[in-house]
Amino acid sequence: MSANPLEIIFQPRSIAVIGASGDPKSLGYHFLRHLIDYGYRGKIYPVNPKLKEVFNLTAYPNLGEVPDTVDYVICCISASKVVELISECSIRGVKAVHLFTGRLSETGRMEAIETERQILKKAKEFNIRLIGPNCAGLYYPGGGISFSYDFPKDSGFVGAFFQSGGAATEFIRYASLRGIRFSKIISYGNAIDLNETDFLQYFSKDKETKIILGYIEGVKDGRTFLNMLKSVASIKPVIIIKGGRSNAGIRSAASHTASIAGSIDIWETALKQSGAVLAESMDDMIDLAVAFSFLPEIYKTHVGIAGGGGGRTVLSADEWEEAGFNVVPLPDRIRNKIREVAPDIWDWIGNPGDRSMMEGSRFSTGDLLEMMSKETDFDLLIANVTDDAPFEKEMWIHTIRKEIDDFIDIHRSRAKPLAVILRTADLGISHSENWRWEFIAEQRTRLIDAQIPVFSTFSRAAKTIGRLIDYYQKKSHVPSL
Amino acid sequence: MSANPLEIIFQPRSIAVIGASGDPKSLGYHFLRHLIDYGYRGKIYPVNPKLKEVFNLTAYPNLGEVPDTVDYVICCISASKVVELISECSIRGVKAVHLFTGRLSETGRMEAIETERQILKKAKEFNIRLIGPNCAGLYYPGGGISFSYDFPKDSGFVGAFFQSGGAATEFIRYASLRGIRFSKIISYGNAIDLNETDFLQYFSKDKETKIILGYIEGVKDGRTFLNMLKSVASIKPVIIIKGGRSNAGIRSAASHTASIAGSIDIWETALKQSGAVLAESMDDMIDLAVAFSFLPEIYKTHVGIAGGGGGRTVLSADEWEEAGFNVVPLPDRIRNKIREVAPDIWDWIGNPGDRSMMEGSRFSTGDLLEMMSKETDFDLLIANVTDDAPFEKEMWIHTIRKEIDDFIDIHRSRAKPLAVILRTADLGISHSENWRWEFIAEQRTRLIDAQIPVFSTFSRAAKTIGRLIDYYQKKSHVPSL
Repeated sequence: MSANPLEIIFQPRSIAVIGASGDPKSLGYHFLRHLIDYGYRGKIYPVNPKLKEVFNLTAYPNLGEVPDTVDYVICCISASKVVELISECSIRGVKAVHLFTGRLSETGRMEAIETERQILKKAKEFNIRLIGPNCAGLYYPGGGISFSYDFPKDSGFVGAFFQSGGAATEFIRYASLRGIRFSKIISYGNAIDLNETDFLQYFSKDKETKIILGYIEGVKDGRTFLNMLKSVASIKPVIIIKGGRSNAGIRSAASHTASIAGSIDIWETALKQSGAVLAESMDDMIDLAVAFSFLPEIYKTHVGIAGGGGGRTVLSADEWEEAGFNVVPLPDRIRNKIREVAPDIWDWIGNPGDRSMMEGSRFSTGDLLEMMSKETDFDLLIANVTDDAPFEKEMWIHTIRKEIDDFIDIHRSRAKPLAVILRTADLGISHSENWRWEFIAEQRTRLIDAQIPVFSTFSRAAKTIGRLIDYYQKKSHVPSL
Repeated sequence: MSANPLEIIFQPRSIAVIGASGDPKSLGYHFLRHLIDYGYRGKIYPVNPKLKEVFNLTAYPNLGEVPDTVDYVICCISASKVVELISECSIRGVKAVHLFTGRLSETGRMEAIETERQILKKAKEFNIRLIGPNCAGLYYPGGGISFSYDFPKDSGFVGAFFQSGGAATEFIRYASLRGIRFSKIISYGNAIDLNETDFLQYFSKDKETKIILGYIEGVKDGRTFLNMLKSVASIKPVIIIKGGRSNAGIRSAASHTASIAGSIDIWETALKQSGAVLAESMDDMIDLAVAFSFLPEIYKTHVGIAGGGGGRTVLSADEWEEAGFNVVPLPDRIRNKIREVAPDIWDWIGNPGDRSMMEGSRFSTGDLLEMMSKETDFDLLIANVTDDAPFEKEMWIHTIRKEIDDFIDIHRSRAKPLAVILRTADLGISHSENWRWEFIAEQRTRLIDAQIPVFSTFSRAAKTIGRLIDYYQKKSHVPSL
């Protein structure tokens, strides 16, 4: 089997931007600028007959004039000019073209469909591989390639393929706030040549990628894809979200990426059988990425919970049990230990541990979690940050800072997997300088910097971590509990 | 039937704080200070044998020394002293006592259970009504009473009873960021006297309250409560969240408020039959409060959606249809109108309307929603703010500001109910001064100030608004679609 074409695509020695521009209203400006801003180390060739120079780089009237071979092309010109471009590509030894160019088969118009067909035919003739058309292309921070200006410049180990550039952008922007960093992300649109199966195969072997995510609308060859998915999911976690699950969604997918979304019942069954993890929404996908990035393999469901007042304690217990976890009673060994430090409350406190019962004692949320971390009764620990308290500024800041210190210590001990629940606030403009939300932002940063998974609510954490356990149980053939 | 005792409780001419203090570590300090800070207009009597004066108010060694009748008492002293206090209350003509005092029956200890019994017995002897024990008491911004320092000082029309003070605090703090304001909130803990049924009855007749929420763990008299709930839910929307739905939750509820949570299966069926709306989590409760506060009565499920790129369009379609809505195709009347202004895309664009297709045309998300607002094909409009775009700063700010202007105009026209989807970001400390998040916070404020319901994701909006429609359908006996 020959090397996956993506091996070359991600390591181009030179990139030409067709339709490069000095006008920030043009995407040709941005694709060029991103190469400079993200530190692409190969040669960059702007191509535009109207320009002599752009960003201090010599511009060329057409690809044929570039005095060098070109490995990779980013194409931002209109569809009618692409067939001719592909011919020029063959002269310069181009191996792959990213077609940002859209308004092709997704418009549903006969002429555009025919143009797309001609583009593919020409590319095959010259053995040039295509990403797209109608897509944002590559984000590869390690290689200095990006399709937006505000993505992280440092790398991580989450790789992804997104049929939608907007969905990819949203995912990268909001997941990066949760501490996720990326190896490589591919936005691939209409997928007339390289498609989801190629990307899956590539990521399965890519040493920079430990977790794989995919947003798919249609799939070119269902059987091949599902076989690949099954094989890859047995190696690395694969999280899939399927767009086009409803009648209206199927209509939308057709006009978005010319995808035939297919029957969701069949898809859902097949995806579940593949061993991949199914995400239901963008939020869910981000939560799953957080869980798989920052938690180790977990196989059982005995959970120890602490922090927050009484209501939060009761609702935590409910929502974790409803998600299939066992919120087991505190073992005697821990109760006896609590008796020594907090004789007033030892017989009252339980799992989840209610922070408000500890008020006035020498016993804290962190102490309880630390005790739990040493007992075999628990497979996973959950810390609720006490932000439901009426304590005023100084007292609350002192309490929370100490809680976060303790959570970080427990995490660093590696005794048990730990996740933290810290609610996300819908801030308005007058709130962003409020001390409470600034302090919470600071504590979130501390947790994330320590690589602790942070979830906004326990219901989302429970639902997410439940599927992580399912994945590892299936992968290791542990019978489900 | 005599007046509901809460009529007096919410309008006390004088309040004594027993255990008032000048030490911020004491809750007696805070309850006193809140009365001053929130502008309580009656007389305030601090009671503490160790003080002569506090906050420029004369302090009294005991309630008997107060030279006046006292309507309402906030009790922050330890449980062992409460029985004696109740006797003193009778001398001063006290009508109701809020027992912040805890560590009673919820500890499960025989002695504490007996003390609680004595307190109730004494209160009944003197016809003094009790809120609590083991609770935060009242938040009534209109009357200058609060149990935390950072609640809104302005009033609204959401009333609530919470068996947990922490859950109440969390709800008030996070719901107020979404634009919700409150008439009266009662945190009621162990509920040995006044209980959930009294509160429901009170709110059903309270002119300041249009929407009622309740967090219940146990219920003193299930049949009476359910009958009341059924009757009240036929008058005003009632949203209930039940804590203690699982084995661990039932254990936690017992040690939190000494509640007997009962079988959740029976509860769930009974609550559903009552016509109340069931919330699943704190987030869900806040979303429901937003929907019922800012949306009119809606009876049908034809939804028109616009904004955001292709992935968001496809996933919106899926998630709204999965929640039971009909994302109907664009009617010909709208397609013909689009043809006039945007002949390039009129045959391509649909419902949901993909913002990225409109790029380069004279047609916008706002234009499409405005057209939808005039057609009988739609019962509800949803605007996705385009924050999934790669546009750089100036272009994006211009686009979004215009979108928000349009959404506010459509909302003000009152032609159709409108909700806006604007994703909430998990901000770290370095993000809070980033222009993107500041700008989003500013736009969120504009939307909320215009009383438009804003949801973080379309899945949450769809699930929430679906239950609002269910509620109004049931209430008006419209057959479900």
